[in-house]
Amino acid sequence: MVVSTPTHVTLSPRIRTSPFYEATIAAGLTDYTIYNKMVMPTSYGDLEAEYQRLIEAVAIWDVGAERQVEIDGPDAGVCAQYLSARDLSKMVVGQGKYVAMCDHEGRILNDPVLMKLSENRYWFSLADHDMLLWCKAVAAEKGFDVRVHEPDVSPLAVQGPRAEDLIAELFGEHIRKLKYFWFTETELDGIPLVLCRSGWSKQGGFELFLRDGSRGTDLWNTVVAAGEKYGIGPGAPNHRERVESGLLSWGGDTTYDTNPFEAGMGRYTDVDCEADFIGKEALQKVVAQGADRLFVGLVVDTDAADVWPLAARTPVTVDGEEVGTMSAIIFSPRLQRTIGLAQIKREVVESGTAVVVESPHGHSSATITELPFL
Amino acid sequence: MVVSTPTHVTLSPRIRTSPFYEATIAAGLTDYTIYNKMVMPTSYGDLEAEYQRLIEAVAIWDVGAERQVEIDGPDAGVCAQYLSARDLSKMVVGQGKYVAMCDHEGRILNDPVLMKLSENRYWFSLADHDMLLWCKAVAAEKGFDVRVHEPDVSPLAVQGPRAEDLIAELFGEHIRKLKYFWFTETELDGIPLVLCRSGWSKQGGFELFLRDGSRGTDLWNTVVAAGEKYGIGPGAPNHRERVESGLLSWGGDTTYDTNPFEAGMGRYTDVDCEADFIGKEALQKVVAQGADRLFVGLVVDTDAADVWPLAARTPVTVDGEEVGTMSAIIFSPRLQRTIGLAQIKREVVESGTAVVVESPHGHSSATITELPFL
Repeated sequence: MVVSTPTHVTLSPRIRTSPFYEATIAAGLTDYTIYNKMVMPTSYGDLEAEYQRLIEAVAIWDVGAERQVEIDGPDAGVCAQYLSARDLSKMVVGQGKYVAMCDHEGRILNDPVLMKLSENRYWFSLADHDMLLWCKAVAAEKGFDVRVHEPDVSPLAVQGPRAEDLIAELFGEHIRKLKYFWFTETELDGIPLVLCRSGWSKQGGFELFLRDGSRGTDLWNTVVAAGEKYGIGPGAPNHRERVESGLLSWGGDTTYDTNPFEAGMGRYTDVDCEADFIGKEALQKVVAQGADRLFVGLVVDTDAADVWPLAARTPVTVDGEEVGTMSAIIFSPRLQRTIGLAQIKREVVESGTAVVVESPHGHSSATITELPFL
Repeated sequence: MVVSTPTHVTLSPRIRTSPFYEATIAAGLTDYTIYNKMVMPTSYGDLEAEYQRLIEAVAIWDVGAERQVEIDGPDAGVCAQYLSARDLSKMVVGQGKYVAMCDHEGRILNDPVLMKLSENRYWFSLADHDMLLWCKAVAAEKGFDVRVHEPDVSPLAVQGPRAEDLIAELFGEHIRKLKYFWFTETELDGIPLVLCRSGWSKQGGFELFLRDGSRGTDLWNTVVAAGEKYGIGPGAPNHRERVESGLLSWGGDTTYDTNPFEAGMGRYTDVDCEADFIGKEALQKVVAQGADRLFVGLVVDTDAADVWPLAARTPVTVDGEEVGTMSAIIFSPRLQRTIGLAQIKREVVESGTAVVVESPHGHSSATITELPFL
């Protein structure tokens, strides 16, 4: 039984910091995680204020650890398609799409936003997995005429209901028309950016993809100065909001053997796509047979829940038999209920059976629900 | 300027713990890093005692984060060779080899020990990079008839001058004949293991590759109980010892554009190998032209050095011009000198010029030397 946990983390040149790191330290960063071998902030010491700011005003997040893999060259389109389990045939320049990248057995390796910068240039904007390795190996062995590399690009997220007003003030009213996951190449006081309507919350907002790593502090300070009247403050991808919104955390909610249909990504997965992509055949079989497990919400019969993530997935049981795993449990400030996220056997989900979950606070009964909660 | 650093790290199901985690907590773990998306111990709160134990007695290290990629199947041999920039034609079952895995441009992706378990089964025992992605993509796209996966295997290192006595007591006197990087499949009180003469120190020792993740605490406790009379205690890959020994930290001492000849791995890189491997052509060019940079030691003219790793690489200069980067600087207890590791332009190394290095304690002059120091 784990009785205490160590609190000091050893940094080294193996672990990078983002261009916004000094600004986050100046803003009072207290907590972080390691993501894509980088320091990624998780809190500035007041989780309640950070949550409220995201729900009611606007928050600035260093998500520089969300790395880009750039595919550049004559075969970029066919390469991006081959790497994505989604039909990209109608994708146009300036558009982003949420895609599952799968292995040859149809298991999800990552759930990036793919951005089409030009006919011959794409970015995969990635969750925590060294996808540069995957993309480079596939491109080289498949013989695609592309260059695959990590560009000097670091996203800064501006999230919350006042984000649009702030971004419109900084970049002009036209950005209000930008559709979800669409983007534009622009600049701010000479700082080169890609501005995208995106971000890992459901509170609305944008990501500013900084294209010059030496300008991180400048960009942070410019956004914060303009954001003051909208109530801006520092924050980070918010665990409670993301659970309420049912946003997938790849590697947290998924395991190495999860396919997109088991992760709530079925609607973004086009197994009948004309073009070839990795895992297509395996995913066609999943569709034919039905997914073994489903990604669902849980309404848990307890008031005892932490504000931080679980340290590890825990078993979900019915009559003592394991039927899945829970990957998150929080007390929702907006629902005033304890809710969770789980991957549970399909027949159990379809039966509507109540389940039992396990958290650091003990065992509780729980009801399976659809996602999102809010 | 960074004035303080946050101290709390957010764990989540995205970050795994090793089978030895509970034993390390019970042993008083105070510091760790994140390695291969896992918690890897770095200290138990007394770096001086941990260093002395490694140099004079025996230390037990949880290096479960050193993951294995298993290549299994009829084409395992040709696949392992294709992934390794070293001639494996004479490799036999029971043998391990330190290899560079390179990309198609000859840049190092990892520096694992490759272990040949049978004619059709190999393990890459890896540094911090998701090489499973690389290996799976290469095998699938190249059409090799192999299964590539991460097995339930977690190394526990026993390092130091008394390690051999301890291991001989546990496994029998015959293990004293085991050659460096050679291994044997065995067990200890019914716990299935691969026992290898290896480990990330130059003090001698073994790694016990645990093959049943449920037995981590049992294995730890058995080794500690038998090791008491040899002065065993908990430790971790030791930053000062590894600098003294000139052991490469992939991702720390190297950057994404480093080739094996720039990382001190030239002698393990066989560009004239008959078999094909990834990066061969690019590395032949490096040999023909000479490496741009060399991995070297530095003797630094200061007594001010920390016991922990640098947070980031720092510039090495000559007359104010950058000629390389320093990746480590420590005060060596055995040499009673401040020493460092750096990657420096070849012409500067060959000229014997003194350089200037930068550490959190300021600027110092330094002399370039060959590795290892000890």
